[in-house]
Amino acid sequence: MAVLQIGAGGVGWVIAHKAAQNNDVFGDITLASRTVSKCEAIIASIHKRENLKDTTKKLEARAVDADDVDALVALINDVKPDLVINAGPPWVNMTIMEACYQAKVSYLDTSVAVDLCSEGQQVPQAYDWQWGYREKFEQAGITGILGAGFDPGVVSIFAAYAVKHLFDEIDTIDVMDVNAGDHGKKFATNFDPETNMLEIQGDSFYWEEGEWKQVGCHTRMMEFDFPLVGKHKVYSMAHDEVRSMQEFIPAKRIEFWMGFGDRYLNYFNCMRDIGLLSPDPITLQDGTVVEPLKVLKALLPDPTSLAPGYTGKTCIGTWVQGKKDGKQRSVFVYNNADHEVAYEDVEHQAIAYTTGVPAITAALLYFKGDWNGKGVFNMEQLDPDPFLELMPSIGLTWGVEELEPSEPVINILK
Amino acid sequence: MAVLQIGAGGVGWVIAHKAAQNNDVFGDITLASRTVSKCEAIIASIHKRENLKDTTKKLEARAVDADDVDALVALINDVKPDLVINAGPPWVNMTIMEACYQAKVSYLDTSVAVDLCSEGQQVPQAYDWQWGYREKFEQAGITGILGAGFDPGVVSIFAAYAVKHLFDEIDTIDVMDVNAGDHGKKFATNFDPETNMLEIQGDSFYWEEGEWKQVGCHTRMMEFDFPLVGKHKVYSMAHDEVRSMQEFIPAKRIEFWMGFGDRYLNYFNCMRDIGLLSPDPITLQDGTVVEPLKVLKALLPDPTSLAPGYTGKTCIGTWVQGKKDGKQRSVFVYNNADHEVAYEDVEHQAIAYTTGVPAITAALLYFKGDWNGKGVFNMEQLDPDPFLELMPSIGLTWGVEELEPSEPVINILK
Repeated sequence: MAVLQIGAGGVGWVIAHKAAQNNDVFGDITLASRTVSKCEAIIASIHKRENLKDTTKKLEARAVDADDVDALVALINDVKPDLVINAGPPWVNMTIMEACYQAKVSYLDTSVAVDLCSEGQQVPQAYDWQWGYREKFEQAGITGILGAGFDPGVVSIFAAYAVKHLFDEIDTIDVMDVNAGDHGKKFATNFDPETNMLEIQGDSFYWEEGEWKQVGCHTRMMEFDFPLVGKHKVYSMAHDEVRSMQEFIPAKRIEFWMGFGDRYLNYFNCMRDIGLLSPDPITLQDGTVVEPLKVLKALLPDPTSLAPGYTGKTCIGTWVQGKKDGKQRSVFVYNNADHEVAYEDVEHQAIAYTTGVPAITAALLYFKGDWNGKGVFNMEQLDPDPFLELMPSIGLTWGVEELEPSEPVINILK
Repeated sequence: MAVLQIGAGGVGWVIAHKAAQNNDVFGDITLASRTVSKCEAIIASIHKRENLKDTTKKLEARAVDADDVDALVALINDVKPDLVINAGPPWVNMTIMEACYQAKVSYLDTSVAVDLCSEGQQVPQAYDWQWGYREKFEQAGITGILGAGFDPGVVSIFAAYAVKHLFDEIDTIDVMDVNAGDHGKKFATNFDPETNMLEIQGDSFYWEEGEWKQVGCHTRMMEFDFPLVGKHKVYSMAHDEVRSMQEFIPAKRIEFWMGFGDRYLNYFNCMRDIGLLSPDPITLQDGTVVEPLKVLKALLPDPTSLAPGYTGKTCIGTWVQGKKDGKQRSVFVYNNADHEVAYEDVEHQAIAYTTGVPAITAALLYFKGDWNGKGVFNMEQLDPDPFLELMPSIGLTWGVEELEPSEPVINILK
């Protein structure tokens, strides 16, 4: 057995650690990235934490340009993995899927191929490109598992679990994501600042009464009382799983909500007001041309540097309301993750941890034969039971909170 | 008669208009700048506003590198002015003074030669370089008038007026500066963003009980009720005239206070927290090296562009407390300037207007022989009476408000 992981950022860091902890199943592990030193740093961390379970198996670093399909195919043919795990940025999904198709090797990723904020790459079209591979993968006899992180990912498993076990009929699905951790910096992003800031500025899309609704960022706000971390303001945002849930789960409203502290939003608004969040180039007095957003990226702390000393917890879950046995029901299915626990386990913070653990859980189900149908699958299409049974042993527990059924109080801002 | 003006920014814009309105006294006017097109734009505005009083006199643009003493001397010898008016940035003061000394022509400026925030260029040392020319100017038989704007400038005239007419003994001098105008932008600076942001971040220096006190920016705050524009929060800041007042006027405490709205300070703090106000170069991912502060400068509106549509008023004055005839006395000597009135007069906003009008008032006093002693003079050393008599006719009125004597309530922040 063997796996090939492409991508060595924060999520790749966690996936590699978790793959190593389970290499009795996965066999040889190859980490590939444009910058091979990033793979080597992860391998050093895995050895330091003694996370390589079966030390007779290989753990190797390779360089690859993930934009180059031929280079990817060559690497896959050389490594001969049973599964390619894509831990790269969204824009390499399509080249890696194409390479997997050509090399006839199964594929898994943790987020959709588009940026969700550019015209034509927004929520309604989000999966058009990847879903275009459904028949190809089926004909090739390989499996594609899409969006197997936490959100997207586990939150859809939670929704599928609710459909399967808790409800007869679904009214609303609200994905709720809050990071109540503290990295000790005045302002920092938990993943690539450029991706993060573009995502946050984008319009939100939600599904309601049979159609897509598009609204400006931070214009729909709720307060939600999260298990363990308490009340937080959350704002409607564009997110992958709104599209895939809409495809597979009939509901009157489907929406994603992200928690932002007033302090974070104040920084965000200031930076946006002065033009620092723009990707459009400007010319300085001396003629130098720069993209303001790339200047911001250079100014802010490297997200990976936040992990040591990061304290507090995240809470991400799926709030489902609907009917069961003729009665209204309201349920929050959720996980709490702890930044310090994540660091202790894999030397990274909980944001990356909550994405990496589900990816490896899904990969294990693929290897075990529970999730290895031929074709391309989103998480909503897969049986939630073996996943939810396995995930706690990989590092993330989950719970179900029964709530009083109530109409969500959505505040319209601006 | 002739004047040579060096510098064609916002203050230069107003000085040139005002010189033109008084060219029956000044004679031929030459505007010089590194970028000759900036001089030509000012000349076009002067003609558009019909501000050239005596149309038989010359009004010409010249290019000059104000960092180059020889080039300045050559220009002065060519133009043969009776006075050189320096309307350039602080760092050209020394080359222009040296050129005036070599060419034996009198000199006038509106701010001190240093940045007031770098080590060794702060308030206690502020005038060391320019005061080094006192004997040279005296021996050369020429006049140097330093800091003849509003603050520095008129506020020292107000203090000298208080000493001469209103007090027997001075306890405290607080220079109060608030711009209660509205330029309609979310965030913008009223003069060069780079200079402005460096100045605002610098430590404040004030004189108290015989010694200099140094404190962090925005750590001393007062609320002050300004004539016409009402109550504003003002913060202790380093400023030129604190040094010159300390040199010439005995007082227990001398301090400069600038009004900042909570909204302005919020932007300022955000930008500082993320590192955008730093002049230290950073390297972007693609290897481009930029100074964050220069990126900010390119992002923010050109201060000159703010003038059309700028509404509201400024209030700048000198709050003096002390004794008169054995009794405590408290007096605020001040001006209110109106952005729209300034624009109507010279097509610029009131911040530049309040600096340019005093410079021309002082220049007129030099030409009239009221202020033409040989040597280098700060405003505190000159007779305030002819200045205060003349200034209203040039564009700025002034008033005296008798206050209830009281200990200023200074809030220590952070």
